[in-house]
Amino acid sequence: MSVPRLAIVGVGLIGGSFALALRAAGAVREVVGVGRNAERLEAARALGVIDRAVGWQEAAQADCVFVAVPVAETGGVLAALAPHLGADTVVTDAGSTKVSVIDAARSALGSHLPRFVPGHPIAGSERSGAAAARADLFRARTVVLTPIAETAPDAVARVSALWTAAGAAVECLDAGVHDRIFAAVSHLPHVAAFALVDELARRDDAATFFRFAASGFRDFTRIAGSSPQMWRDIALANRAALIDELDAYVAALAAVRAAIAAGDGESLLATFSRARRAREDWIGPGHTG
Amino acid sequence: MSVPRLAIVGVGLIGGSFALALRAAGAVREVVGVGRNAERLEAARALGVIDRAVGWQEAAQADCVFVAVPVAETGGVLAALAPHLGADTVVTDAGSTKVSVIDAARSALGSHLPRFVPGHPIAGSERSGAAAARADLFRARTVVLTPIAETAPDAVARVSALWTAAGAAVECLDAGVHDRIFAAVSHLPHVAAFALVDELARRDDAATFFRFAASGFRDFTRIAGSSPQMWRDIALANRAALIDELDAYVAALAAVRAAIAAGDGESLLATFSRARRAREDWIGPGHTG
Repeated sequence: MSVPRLAIVGVGLIGGSFALALRAAGAVREVVGVGRNAERLEAARALGVIDRAVGWQEAAQADCVFVAVPVAETGGVLAALAPHLGADTVVTDAGSTKVSVIDAARSALGSHLPRFVPGHPIAGSERSGAAAARADLFRARTVVLTPIAETAPDAVARVSALWTAAGAAVECLDAGVHDRIFAAVSHLPHVAAFALVDELARRDDAATFFRFAASGFRDFTRIAGSSPQMWRDIALANRAALIDELDAYVAALAAVRAAIAAGDGESLLATFSRARRAREDWIGPGHTG
Repeated sequence: MSVPRLAIVGVGLIGGSFALALRAAGAVREVVGVGRNAERLEAARALGVIDRAVGWQEAAQADCVFVAVPVAETGGVLAALAPHLGADTVVTDAGSTKVSVIDAARSALGSHLPRFVPGHPIAGSERSGAAAARADLFRARTVVLTPIAETAPDAVARVSALWTAAGAAVECLDAGVHDRIFAAVSHLPHVAAFALVDELARRDDAATFFRFAASGFRDFTRIAGSSPQMWRDIALANRAALIDELDAYVAALAAVRAAIAAGDGESLLATFSRARRAREDWIGPGHTG
């Protein structure tokens, strides 16, 4: 499976890596880029990530348009593309939340909705920007597609084939299920790490605490080094599922607090042991992960 | 500074690494080990971590006794040593909580209390046991000593010199301050990671969640791979300070929840940005940590 022309909206880490991966696989003949920042597009061109920068009209005529922008901007991008979309053009995205993106697509795309394939590559890096893009970013990673009832099966097949060419394993999920799963395993941990670090940082004697923080704290809070703008957008885009997860987490913390206050070592040992075992089962035996 | 004879109670990662570091520095002539498990002591001897295994009576006559056992066992160890302690023998420990250890020392040591120096090396590893011991485990790490009013200054000086010989930087703190600091930067993150993983693991559809968990989840929960027994003991030994930290954390999570529910992106961005900046300031510029 290959597409003659791929358009990337948002030529950053994700968009750029998708382009490089498909180029490396010989799955695309030309890659064009579109974005608000002409300087960044020129840098991406100089790096060989895109062949040239184009406007919305030309981008919308590509065989496949890959939208890799913050979730809050997806609606605007789809609205800009919509009037110009080629009849056969497939549009897909890389947003971390899917119900909100599908709502935006429903509003923006009208009769083109069946050719929009909602997607979420489970890959990333602390680095960002086209200069950080790598042809192997998606290799052996999972990409979740969340087609809706209206989505055309051939559009799903085409996007799926491109991801496979990029080295990823494709799974399909219901968008609501996707959002609940990622609220639990990604959005909650990020929000919880930000909240913990900020709570310490706001103390008058914050410096004393940070001075003695060690490797456990560094690991636990690594994701608090992520983009605040991106995570604000994700938290708001997936707010219902994230609030459910926050409530479940706070209830779990309250149970641990009660056990500590009661001196109930047995209950603490049971909780901590179940957690360690579940994590070991997940990471795989013999890994320290 | 050197000691002719060092006794290690609990020849695991910490006790064994202390012995190896002082041997490598030429700061000790003989290292004896004491513990309940004869097989483990023999393994430590075969590895060259200790020269020989001894009983409580002989261990208590060493120039320095290093107690590296779980905090809940420290009181029992000190009581076993107490009747046999040499007049000049300095006793120190490696427990992660200090107020509870000092209480135990006060009960167990009687007139020998001035020669007990409470300590906490801020170092560790996912691995445990004497086979994981390394002469460089404490190099460039901080060791906190928390002497009390009764502690003899020359005992503090001797322990401090041994840690310096082992490559560590020594800092003195009030024990209560130590326990509050480590409740915030170590004990709370561990308990929070255990609680989060266990909450997921107890769900009927837990496998679905773990299947899509990625690197952010792995980092955030790495410390949930720690010893459940050790962390039960620490949580109970430092319960008052830990409960205060849990309450502050839950309040911070409640504030984030309220901002999400209200769609208050400005407040979320402020919290997330402060957290990221504080973490960057801590890790140091240019590190991805």
